[in-house]
Amino acid sequence: MFPPYSFPLPLLAAAAEAENGSIVLTGVLLSLVVIYLASKLGGELSKRLDLPPVLGELVGGVVVGASVLHLVVFPESGSTASDSVLMSVLQAIDGLSPETVASVFQSQSEAITILAELGVIILLFEIGLESDLRELGKVGYQAAVVACIGVVVPFAAGTVGLMYFFGVPAIPAIFAGAALTATSIGITSKVLSEIGFLKSREGQIIVGAAVIDDVLGIIVLAVVASLAKTGEVDILNVVFLIIAATSFLLGSILLGKFFNKSFVAIAEKLQTRGNLVIPAFVFAFFMAFLANAIHLEAILGAFAAGLVLDETDKRKELDQQVIPIADIFVPIFFVTVGAKVDLSVLNPAIPSNREGLAIAAFLIVVAIIGKLVTGWGVFGQPGINRLAIGIGMIPRGEVGLVFAGIGSASGVLDKPLQAAIIIMVILTTFLAPPGLRFAFKSSPESQEEIESVDSVS
Amino acid sequence: MFPPYSFPLPLLAAAAEAENGSIVLTGVLLSLVVIYLASKLGGELSKRLDLPPVLGELVGGVVVGASVLHLVVFPESGSTASDSVLMSVLQAIDGLSPETVASVFQSQSEAITILAELGVIILLFEIGLESDLRELGKVGYQAAVVACIGVVVPFAAGTVGLMYFFGVPAIPAIFAGAALTATSIGITSKVLSEIGFLKSREGQIIVGAAVIDDVLGIIVLAVVASLAKTGEVDILNVVFLIIAATSFLLGSILLGKFFNKSFVAIAEKLQTRGNLVIPAFVFAFFMAFLANAIHLEAILGAFAAGLVLDETDKRKELDQQVIPIADIFVPIFFVTVGAKVDLSVLNPAIPSNREGLAIAAFLIVVAIIGKLVTGWGVFGQPGINRLAIGIGMIPRGEVGLVFAGIGSASGVLDKPLQAAIIIMVILTTFLAPPGLRFAFKSSPESQEEIESVDSVS
Repeated sequence: MFPPYSFPLPLLAAAAEAENGSIVLTGVLLSLVVIYLASKLGGELSKRLDLPPVLGELVGGVVVGASVLHLVVFPESGSTASDSVLMSVLQAIDGLSPETVASVFQSQSEAITILAELGVIILLFEIGLESDLRELGKVGYQAAVVACIGVVVPFAAGTVGLMYFFGVPAIPAIFAGAALTATSIGITSKVLSEIGFLKSREGQIIVGAAVIDDVLGIIVLAVVASLAKTGEVDILNVVFLIIAATSFLLGSILLGKFFNKSFVAIAEKLQTRGNLVIPAFVFAFFMAFLANAIHLEAILGAFAAGLVLDETDKRKELDQQVIPIADIFVPIFFVTVGAKVDLSVLNPAIPSNREGLAIAAFLIVVAIIGKLVTGWGVFGQPGINRLAIGIGMIPRGEVGLVFAGIGSASGVLDKPLQAAIIIMVILTTFLAPPGLRFAFKSSPESQEEIESVDSVS
Repeated sequence: MFPPYSFPLPLLAAAAEAENGSIVLTGVLLSLVVIYLASKLGGELSKRLDLPPVLGELVGGVVVGASVLHLVVFPESGSTASDSVLMSVLQAIDGLSPETVASVFQSQSEAITILAELGVIILLFEIGLESDLRELGKVGYQAAVVACIGVVVPFAAGTVGLMYFFGVPAIPAIFAGAALTATSIGITSKVLSEIGFLKSREGQIIVGAAVIDDVLGIIVLAVVASLAKTGEVDILNVVFLIIAATSFLLGSILLGKFFNKSFVAIAEKLQTRGNLVIPAFVFAFFMAFLANAIHLEAILGAFAAGLVLDETDKRKELDQQVIPIADIFVPIFFVTVGAKVDLSVLNPAIPSNREGLAIAAFLIVVAIIGKLVTGWGVFGQPGINRLAIGIGMIPRGEVGLVFAGIGSASGVLDKPLQAAIIIMVILTTFLAPPGLRFAFKSSPESQEEIESVDSVS
């Protein structure tokens, strides 16, 4: 009935496999501990310095990441298992072979990346929940104008400038120009929410424009990628992307009007734990999946889901329950964004970095001015804080890093240009939070609101 | 300054890489939607039938898993990408190559597995938070006796029975006997909490014994693995494991007495979001990491962390915030446990299954009787519900599946024996929840308590 004994070796392999799974978990747990410590130390320090906590979380990520401590590093940014201090710790604990370490490093990095992606999806869902669709609708035209200016001006100025001043060939120049168009909804809206201006007219225009920008950014990336691939633009694909993105957002909001009531009815019928939060996350994750499936960004779907559920009677109760979930997931996103950046390309003492620094200086100027001018595109809103809107559009954040990441892995961008884009992304991202606080503080009508927010928190 | 154009192919590769990452995310999101739907449908149905929701979540997992719908399947249980309906959906949406599908399937399964593992860690953390250390201490001796009987009786009866009645060679028989020793803390304590008996004397003895069982189970697995590897038992390793596990639990509880006050002090000093929940999770994840690092189970560390934080003044507030986080993570664990089981080995119409069914019937009898008797090992507790304690120890759950998984992948266990162990794990796991309700309902002194719990929920 039983085969002759042939198990010792396969058993070892299976035990090793199970053991590997357990080591991946060990690595994920340790990474999360480091990420949470970095986010809290950075966030609290930032708060003490009267800066938005999210800035501190980013800096915390830079400190534990590829730039300084090498605790949380990722294969995408060129790190190997031997660069990771955490992997060395695991190797010392378990006496692993180099091949095991490499495979554990890969799996662990993928897991943290997925957790970070879920983090930004949950962040956008929460922001959707906090945004008011009617308010957003009121500023829809202004947001569209701001978004378009914020895409066209930096793209044109960046591409033309790189070609004329620095002699960059057309394709890399267009790619770098495209990287200038993005706006980070995540960072801007987190800062706006932290300083209590998410629901101001300015805040709603910025968020609206950032959403539209995200859609435009996806289209620009698709166009640039197809341009690099074939040497010509696939008009059909561009038209498809524009139609898909627009109809997705409008369609989900329209359908949401009907879904609202069913959602409340379902949540009220459920009697087991998670009766509100599970249906909400099913909806949010399904919308994120849908957006991803039609080649838009997942965060767009989560944002739309939040907007829809914001209209329900369960809004407050849901908000309350989403907060601790977001508290656990969102820091993973911000810390890993910081951790993936390698600041060593900034060191001016190394001659080969200087070329990149010169281009970086140019890109930064274009990135800032190109978005600052958007504030003056707002019409029919007397007394609006145009400076705040312009500054709110500046951070490139995760979206800019996606451009830089694809460009750097592809070979379209050479080292100096890559470095320049990364520096531009870092600086614009770090500049916006204090800039926004300054802009809102300098506006007399907002002074009171800021003070009351400060005293509450 | 720029190299000649050499980008189209690498750009494609990089775009494909980025695209892969995005497809993995799409797969994870879709899997989570299916998992949540299965958990809610199963849980609610179970509740309507007056059964504990967790049983429905397991059945929901079986339905969407390898047995029926093939929506959520895993490489560990022998499935390939082509067995996964979700992967076919992704393939249809994105027109992927078979190699891409295989790699996306692998990454997506790893991500869901890590989320499930975080789920059971968070579950044990929550259970630790809900357990009272002083109550647990009062029943410590009884729990130890119950645990030891529950390990020795099924192990001896199972191994000897398999060798004498079924002619199974010694090593596979010992392996199968070892699989009978485990107790699933997760399932039992979830059921106890759902029917409102987690804090009863019986509940505390069961949870305490399950914790000790988990420690013993790890030692048994280590012994069996080293026996299979070398043909002899590494006494030194066994002694090390026993000392490590005991001193870990006692040490963390003792250190916790001091850490308590620092934890509250830290949480009170923090001013940013997540000021309570992030330090708590840093502690829980660090303890889980520590347990894993010294080759114990991560859940042991999370449980210890919960026990320690239960002693703080922040207990209630923390509990409130952990609930929605657990609501999001824990169902992933229960649904995947169900999904990993393949019920097709149960089909008696296929002749080759019959041998396994006979062995299964024997193992099930041993598994039930071997744990039922533990209730009569309790001393010095007049009027205690011995039947409830015995039933509470029956479910093997995830721990039993770990034994079956390692055994099946290793070749120690042939097909019929593998199938028999899996059937035993399923049945014991599914029997316990209704059994526990029955046992507690039949106890007159508990009747009132159950009714009041029923009317609340």
